[in-house]
Formats: sequence, structure tokens, C-alpha cells
Amino acid sequence: MNYKAILRMLSSIMMLEALFFLPSMGLALYDRDYHVLRGFIFTITLLVILALLFRLVSRNDRSSFFVREGFMLVGLTWIVMSLFGALPFFISGEIPSYFDAFFETVSGFTTTGASILRDVEIMSRSLLLWRSFTHWLGGMGILVFMLALIPAAKGRGESLHVLRAESPGPTLEKIVPKTREHAMILYGLYTGLSVICFLFLYLGGMPLFDSVCTTFGTAGTGGFGIKADSMGSYSPYCQMVVTIFMAFFGVSFNIYFLIVLRRFRAAFKDEEMRVYFGILLSSIILVGINVAGMFDSVEEAFRHAAFSVSSVMTTTGYATVDFNRWPQFARGILLLLMVTGASAGSTAGGVKISRVILMLKSCYREIRKLLHPRSVMPVRMNGHAVSEETIRGVNIYAVVYICIYIASFLLVSIDDFSFETNATAVLTCLGNVGPGFGMVGPAGNFADYSALSKLVLSLDMLLGRLEIFPLLLLFHYRTWSRSS
Amino acid sequence: MNYKAILRMLSSIMMLEALFFLPSMGLALYDRDYHVLRGFIFTITLLVILALLFRLVSRNDRSSFFVREGFMLVGLTWIVMSLFGALPFFISGEIPSYFDAFFETVSGFTTTGASILRDVEIMSRSLLLWRSFTHWLGGMGILVFMLALIPAAKGRGESLHVLRAESPGPTLEKIVPKTREHAMILYGLYTGLSVICFLFLYLGGMPLFDSVCTTFGTAGTGGFGIKADSMGSYSPYCQMVVTIFMAFFGVSFNIYFLIVLRRFRAAFKDEEMRVYFGILLSSIILVGINVAGMFDSVEEAFRHAAFSVSSVMTTTGYATVDFNRWPQFARGILLLLMVTGASAGSTAGGVKISRVILMLKSCYREIRKLLHPRSVMPVRMNGHAVSEETIRGVNIYAVVYICIYIASFLLVSIDDFSFETNATAVLTCLGNVGPGFGMVGPAGNFADYSALSKLVLSLDMLLGRLEIFPLLLLFHYRTWSRSS
Repeated sequence: MNYKAILRMLSSIMMLEALFFLPSMGLALYDRDYHVLRGFIFTITLLVILALLFRLVSRNDRSSFFVREGFMLVGLTWIVMSLFGALPFFISGEIPSYFDAFFETVSGFTTTGASILRDVEIMSRSLLLWRSFTHWLGGMGILVFMLALIPAAKGRGESLHVLRAESPGPTLEKIVPKTREHAMILYGLYTGLSVICFLFLYLGGMPLFDSVCTTFGTAGTGGFGIKADSMGSYSPYCQMVVTIFMAFFGVSFNIYFLIVLRRFRAAFKDEEMRVYFGILLSSIILVGINVAGMFDSVEEAFRHAAFSVSSVMTTTGYATVDFNRWPQFARGILLLLMVTGASAGSTAGGVKISRVILMLKSCYREIRKLLHPRSVMPVRMNGHAVSEETIRGVNIYAVVYICIYIASFLLVSIDDFSFETNATAVLTCLGNVGPGFGMVGPAGNFADYSALSKLVLSLDMLLGRLEIFPLLLLFHYRTWSRSS
Repeated sequence: MNYKAILRMLSSIMMLEALFFLPSMGLALYDRDYHVLRGFIFTITLLVILALLFRLVSRNDRSSFFVREGFMLVGLTWIVMSLFGALPFFISGEIPSYFDAFFETVSGFTTTGASILRDVEIMSRSLLLWRSFTHWLGGMGILVFMLALIPAAKGRGESLHVLRAESPGPTLEKIVPKTREHAMILYGLYTGLSVICFLFLYLGGMPLFDSVCTTFGTAGTGGFGIKADSMGSYSPYCQMVVTIFMAFFGVSFNIYFLIVLRRFRAAFKDEEMRVYFGILLSSIILVGINVAGMFDSVEEAFRHAAFSVSSVMTTTGYATVDFNRWPQFARGILLLLMVTGASAGSTAGGVKISRVILMLKSCYREIRKLLHPRSVMPVRMNGHAVSEETIRGVNIYAVVYICIYIASFLLVSIDDFSFETNATAVLTCLGNVGPGFGMVGPAGNFADYSALSKLVLSLDMLLGRLEIFPLLLLFHYRTWSRSS
């Protein structure tokens, strides 16, 4: 393991995080929230000092950077970002427990949106801005952002490994050959779509601060609300805008790039996108019919159904109503969507639609193989045969996912809350959704869990966002050996 | 597809089922329960007539029998056995709905033990005997029984395919080269162990009828109780005997064969057996500690913990106490054991310990492969490398299992019972355990589910018992085409 190369990259990451604090710090200054300001200043100073120290230690490094280092860097980056990102909440005193602050920050960066806050409306605006901003940063990826900024000085392999480890989905389809360009295009599209979303909200009558925070939460598919009732008190127009933009941010950014290139046919024919919208629409219809009796009009029922389905499937987690009180069938659909998530290459979490497609196709092949044991049947996606290694990876992914789910569920069960609460709390954290059912439903929060459970759930959020392997590697003893 | 060969085999199966009815019919005669007797006589007559008809149709068959036919025969056998097995319950009027009777019979043959009976103690003894006897028959397999009886007249391939499709576990280790001998040894060991279990119970003071039924339920890891409180009212001695024998019937019968051959070292070193007992004992300790405060003495707590863990892990489903009321951690452990089940090659259900071992090992390998992408790392079991095909099969199995779970859960959710009830009802049926949590806990039953849910859950029990693929093939349109 090449520690110096990792330290050098971590140093840049920490400098970047110090910069990310500046907008929120500005707002704290503007609002004269000096207790928050103190938190930001302390954290920034600490980050800069440590970053310089790391740079000093790794200054003579000319060494190479391989897959292993890439995975390790990604795992460490997200943990370090969260550890420091939690400090302002803690130092300002607005979240008195550091465990809670860490949970909240991990939930932000991983775009989960699960909260330990019993009352979000008493928080200062600057911290709410930082909290929502973590969604936006985590959505597309912190390292992807760095790759877009800094030129790949040493070895282009380095950046590709990092991109591969941080980007969600079973395979990374590079849209342009150079990694840096790829990262820049991703962030360009991301920023563009975010600005459009913001304009729709702001010009539609939402206050400026709310529009900014809601845009961050929508674009990153995060879901931290700044009101106690999440999106419940905004106008139906605003709710519709958020519904539509959540759905848009659940689409792979490769599709948007194809559209920018005017390759509409390729974009329109994409298999994952079609299945994604197919599931989205049919879920809205099923849920809408199931809950129609609970609302005054069919229009209202379908508006809330569309919002909830779009919010849960894109793993955002905003809510207009407490869908925890819906009938079991509608809840079952939402539960299923929590697991599947949206498209690979989007900002959404979950298992990802393309993985689900590959799993189902490989299962179907297995059944056909029973009938024709000797025939060769490649699994196809968008017309191309998918490599056996990818398919094996996808199925192994499912099994590891379950193992982590089971272990987390058992640990969280030590806190003696209901089966429903525990089972869905782990699911919603692993899928980076936010709300679950029972105590952790849209109207509830994670505050009552013990420190152990909060730590387990924080880890689950990170495992979900980084798609398990980068983080799992950190716990493997051989990762830390210098040799081999 | 070779229909005549299948009809010929089905005809033997139906003759056999007519014979299986005779002991219970004898009891009905002895008890003068004429309404039940009528049910048995009608069913037997119908079976014999249809069997003769099938034999007539397929009398000129000389055709061959391949994998496809094997799988199909297994799927059809279990459905046909259940359809006819349900008739006496229905005709006698003791279960007024045929859907319910079918559910109960499927639950019996698949050794699940989930019941729709609100009060089991009002049933006549002859039907209770038949109900328990289905456990014993289903435990080792109906076709395995037939293979042990009839000489493999045409093509030995035929019998091997059937054995492979009906025997639980990822791979079938043949202990002797000839299939018929293999089947005879299995049933010999099974009968022997059952007789020992019966003697321990009967000589320990349990009434004769209760001893017989309890032995059937224990040996088949079924779990139909003949008392309202399952095993709760029997003496601690009887409960301990059942605890120990349930655990024994969760061990692969290959181990017993090795012991009979005096190859103790090989038996003792078996990896699956060691892991099985390791999980069993550590679960008893964890659950025992977790529930210790609920009982008067530590001894009592551990007795009930041992019984419940052994019952759930071997997917039997007997209960001495209502473990639905236990703390969430103990319930979490039990839930996990419902999924894992016991050893491949035993009468128990669930995913099977050897599959769990292979899944975990292949996941661990995947993590190591990230570090050393080019090295070849075979997964080993009992010191031998496992084929990549087996590993892929095991992982695909997990994915199909989840898909079936999700689909069933959604369908069952249409009945608006609690999340806990629905989630565990499907789990316990797929794992052939019997009781779940909530409404379907050890003190509850499945009576209130709708006909649709009962059908879905019946199908889940069959899918669980036949390890998915034989039954899934029945629904594949190509299975039914004559060509290819």
C-alpha cells in the first residue's frame, strides 16, 4: 500500500472541504450567528493545518497509484469528510452529541437524508445550508469534483481508479476517453440541471433560502428538509416541480450527455432508462389507486403518490404526507423501491436499476440453462453481451448487501424498537433513502437510537453510497500491509 | 417434453399416495369417525382410478427421461400429492374451505407446519395423524421414497435426475454409486432415527398417539402440533428430547451414513456440520442471555432458548413459549435462523448452511480479488475446490430467492395486516419454518389471510421445499413445448 500517495490526495481533499465551508460561513456571518461562525472557523483552521502537514509528509512522493489505493482513498475520503463536516454542528452546540453530528453529516454526504433532529426548525440557517450543501457535494461525488478541478499530473490511471470506485453502478461507461473531461462534463450537467431546478422553484414563489436548500436536496437526491413537515407546506406547484426534478436526477447523466450531443435515439433507447421510467410510472399508478380513498380528490391522491414514489425510488426521501400511514400494499411498493433505487450513473442510491436488470436476466438465463444445459447464452444489455465477470460481480454484490443488512439489523435490534422500525431503518440507510417506516417514518427521526445503532447506521449509509467494496476493503487486514 | 414418461411416473406416485392414506384410514375406522372415513375412501378411489388411467395412456412408452423431465416430474408430484392430500380434510368437513385444506396439506408435505387451524384440538385423530404423516413423507422426499421402492427399470439417468431435483442443497454428494441404494440408505437411516426418537418420547411418558405425531413432526422438521400450545404442555424431559432430535434431523444424512460406516473422522471434520452446530450453540447462548430476565430461572430460560433456536433453525416450528413476545434481538436471531435453515441433505428447509458458507466464501474472495485482480483463488469446501458453476448457482439462488420473496410480500401485503406479519409470513413459508412474528407468531395462525395470500404462501412453501427451480420451470412456457 502506497501511503504517501494517499496522504497527498487526502491533503487536497481537506483543502477542498475547507473551501466548501465558506458559503455557509458567509451566511453565519450575515446572520450574526457567532456560535456557528466559531465552529466553522475552528474546523477550517484545523483542516488547513492538517492538510499542510499531510502535504509536507508526502512531498517527495513519485510513486504509482493502483486499484487498491484508489479504493482506499475513496473510503478514507468519505470518512474524513464526514468527521470534519460534523464539527461545526458539534462545536456550535446545535447538535450536542458528536455521534449525532457525525450521523447527520454522513447522512448528508451520502445523500441519505436520515436525521437525528427532533425539531429541524430551531437550527440556524447557516448550518441548514451546510447540511443541505453536503447533499449536493455527495450526490455527484467529492472525488469526482476534485478530478474535474485538478489536472491529472501523475499517471492517468490514478484518476480512473478513483472515478470507478466512487461512481455508482455495476460498470462505468466512460463517455469521453479522458477522465478529467468526463468528470468535468458530469459536474457541468449536474450544475446546469441544478440551476434549472432552482429557477423553477424560486420563480414559482419559493423563498430564496428554501429554493437553494431544496435544490441541493433534490439534485443530490438527499432529502434533508428544512421544515418539520418536509415538503408538506409548499404549494402543489412546488411539490410537482420537486417530483419531476427528483425523477430527472434519478436518470443516468450519460443520458443527458447524449441529449446534449443531440444523439436522441441512443438516449431514448437506453434500456435502464426505459425500465426506470416504467417502474416509476407503474408504481405511481399502483400506489395512487391504493391510496385514492384516503384523499379528498383523485388528483390529490395521485399528486402525493407521484411525489412519494419519485422521492423514495430516487432515494431522496422528501415527503408531502406521512406515507407511513398508508395501506400495506402501497408501503410494500415503497419498500421495494427503497431497495432498487434509481439508475446507475445518477445521484440516486439503492441497488440501482441496471443491477436489478442484470440480476433478473442472469436468473432467467439460469432457468433456461436447466432446459438447455449446453447452450451458450450471453446476458445482453442495450444489445451488447455483458461480461460474465460483471454478472458475477452483480450477484455477489446482492449477497454482500444481504450479509451487511443482516448484521446491521441484528446490531440495531439490540435497541428494543419494533421490528418494522429496525428492519426499515437499516434498509433506508443502506439504500440512502432517509425515511423508513414506524418510528423512523417520514414524520419521525433517528434520535432515539443508541450511539451503537447510530454508528452502525452511519456505516450502512457509507457502505450504500460507496457500493460496499471501497469501504469493506478498509476493514480487510491485508489492505494495510505494505507488501504484495 | 416427454409427457408419457411423466404420466407413467405420476401414476406410480398416485398409487403410492393411496397406500399412504391407509394407516390414517385405519385409525378413522378404529375411532368410528365415519365422516373422515368417507373422505379417505373417496380420495383413495379417485387416486386409484386416475392412476390406472394414466398407466393405460402411457403403457407403450419406451422413451427416455432427461433433466427437464426430472425437474418437471418433481414439480408436478408435489402439486398432485398436495391436491389429493387435501381432499380428506375438505370432504370430511373438518376444514370447510378447499383453499385452506390445500394450504394445510402443502404446509404438511413441505414440512413447514404453518397452519390455518384456529383450534387444532377439535380435529379428529385420524386427520391429525395424516397431517403429521405428511411431514414425515415430505421430509425425506416422496420421490426418494419411490426410488427406494421400485427398481430403476428403464435408464438409470431417470432416477438420478429426480433425486437431484428433490434433494435439498447446492450439490448432491452421492454416497453410493447406485441411485436406488442411495435412496434406500437415506430412508433406512431416516426410519431408524425416527424410531429412536419415538422410543425416547414414548418411554419418557408421552402418550402413544402424541409420540407418533411428534416423531413425524420432529423427523420431518415439520412442526404441526396436535395441541393448541404446541409443545408447551409436555414435560421438560420431552421438550429436551425434541430439542435434541430436531437438532439431529438438521444434520446431513451423509454424516450419519459415515458414522454407520465407522468413518468417524470424516464425519467429525465435515465443514457444514461444524458450522451448523457452531451457529446453533452460539445462537442458543445469545438468545438465552437475551431472554434470561423473562424467566424464573436461568435453567428455564436456556431450556426455552435451546428449544426455540433448535426449532427455528431446523425449520421445524414447534414452540414451548410464544417467542413472538421476546426482545427484538432474540427475535432478530430467530429471524436470521429462519432464513439460513440447517444442513443440506437433511430434512430441514431454509437456504441451507452449506449455501451460506459458499456465499460468504465467494464474497470474501471477491474482496480479495479487488486487491489481487489477477490471482486465481478457488473457493474450498471440506478441502476441495468448489466448481465455479456451483458458486454461480448458489449466488443466483440467493437472487431468485429474494425476487420471489419480494413478489410474494407485495401480493400478501394486499391483505392489510401489519408489516411484521406480512414480512415474516412470507419468510417463514419460503423457509418451511412455520411460525413467524405478529399475527402468524407461535400463538397465532394463518387463518385470517385471504384466499389469494394463502395460494401465494402455498406456492412459497413449495418453492422453498423444492429449492425453487423445479417449480419455476413449470411456469416457463418453453418447458411445455414438445420440440427442443
